[in-house]
Amino acid sequence: MLIDHLSIIGVGLIGGSLARALKKAKLVNRVTGCNRREDTLKKAIELEVIDDYTLDISDAVKGADVVVIGTPLSTTEKLLPQIAEALANEAVLTDVGSAKASVVNAARTALADQFPRFVPGHPIAGTEQSGVEASFAELFIDHRVILTPVEETCDKAHKLITDMWQAVGADVIDLDVKHHDNVLAATSHLPHMLAYALVDCLAGMQERDEIFKYAAGGFADFTRIASSNPDMWHDICFSNRDALLKTLDVFSEHINQIKVAIEASDSEQLLEIFRRAKQARDEFVSSKK
Amino acid sequence: MLIDHLSIIGVGLIGGSLARALKKAKLVNRVTGCNRREDTLKKAIELEVIDDYTLDISDAVKGADVVVIGTPLSTTEKLLPQIAEALANEAVLTDVGSAKASVVNAARTALADQFPRFVPGHPIAGTEQSGVEASFAELFIDHRVILTPVEETCDKAHKLITDMWQAVGADVIDLDVKHHDNVLAATSHLPHMLAYALVDCLAGMQERDEIFKYAAGGFADFTRIASSNPDMWHDICFSNRDALLKTLDVFSEHINQIKVAIEASDSEQLLEIFRRAKQARDEFVSSKK
Repeated sequence: MLIDHLSIIGVGLIGGSLARALKKAKLVNRVTGCNRREDTLKKAIELEVIDDYTLDISDAVKGADVVVIGTPLSTTEKLLPQIAEALANEAVLTDVGSAKASVVNAARTALADQFPRFVPGHPIAGTEQSGVEASFAELFIDHRVILTPVEETCDKAHKLITDMWQAVGADVIDLDVKHHDNVLAATSHLPHMLAYALVDCLAGMQERDEIFKYAAGGFADFTRIASSNPDMWHDICFSNRDALLKTLDVFSEHINQIKVAIEASDSEQLLEIFRRAKQARDEFVSSKK
Repeated sequence: MLIDHLSIIGVGLIGGSLARALKKAKLVNRVTGCNRREDTLKKAIELEVIDDYTLDISDAVKGADVVVIGTPLSTTEKLLPQIAEALANEAVLTDVGSAKASVVNAARTALADQFPRFVPGHPIAGTEQSGVEASFAELFIDHRVILTPVEETCDKAHKLITDMWQAVGADVIDLDVKHHDNVLAATSHLPHMLAYALVDCLAGMQERDEIFKYAAGGFADFTRIASSNPDMWHDICFSNRDALLKTLDVFSEHINQIKVAIEASDSEQLLEIFRRAKQARDEFVSSKK
């Protein structure tokens, strides 16, 4: 048995899928769920995602060997002091937040001498769905989980969390905190902003009804991420504020280059941008094969 | 038999798929292909997409009952005078360009008294692939084909082209030219610009290798259209210049609203944008079911 007693704070898509996968692989004895809303926990019991639940965070944390925080980032930061108080000796804590510097800073302060047993994590998995109803055991198979251990992080805790994610099928890699935040700002946070801005922009247009009526498959793909959870993305924006704002500026320069090329009837420049982008995207796709 | 002799000028994904579909349904007797490059035509013969070919546009047009122009927009505009000279009496001409005002204007001038037999068309189908090798008979099934007939367009020609697209499984609708160009600028041309700009932006970043390494499935979906044909999109940008530039400006305002909300730590504003976008996108998806 990898983990005797696992507690999940925030039983949603990620926490629920992790619990399902560990149970399916018989790598956990008992899973306790903790959420703000009791109906979510009742649902999780019904779906056999968790074994028992409590609405009290201290109760949830107390007896656990591993505590996984699956809440949105702003909630995580708020809960850390309470978790720190209840965390058992030897227990290991991890999170699943999409931005890491802010969580690591908050954890360092809140956890103090327990900080070495916190392993910052980010599973690069998920769909535009959210909630425990959308969870499934296979979510992490062949997906990357990025861990961002820091100097203080203890090897034993790091190894346990690595083993846990590998056991559910993930490809676990370590990245430096700042590096993680820059890379994710570019590959995930920026595209989400573009999708939200695009759909909001079209929804406000006079031709709104026809726009959505005549949009084709490519548009559905392109805007899928605009159906993501607004609260979660709100938190990510503020948690990864600096990297995201920088990336937004770089993007704006690039879209402006296209605009200027069209205005100036600069065929060569426009073709060069499109060809360079197509080549990079084609290379990206073949690298994934 | 719907069409005795069909000629396709520009045998690519769209023209090739149309020929395949009409042949499969036994709705055409003979398909002639015409392209700038002979190897494409040899390939099309080999794939049984066309029955014969010529490199001479006049020859291709002369005996045809229906001529479909499947070339990029700038080529279409250049070829129209030659096509006009060779077009048989009673023959019907159509195109598949993604922007309509520029083609309609060019056709009105080039075709003169034959202009009523030109039916401007735009099949909303296609993948990021291009070329006759990527063509397949089922491409148009359950996809929309927008026709933008004008005042002069003759009913008989309009009906024939409507029948042709319906026969290959498409849902054919008529739109006003300007309306088509505005709607497509929003749903298709703008998203392509965003995808090209995003990939070009990331490809130029210092962390380029890691960015592409850690990008997940959502990123592949989001950037799929950046693998589209650069020459075709170059032409679309200039053919639908005004509508696209206007749409780019509206988008820039929206992405800027997000930026300003993050900078100002304006939680309410950011949440409102994300929620509004999610709702619009969710409604769009359920309307397609």
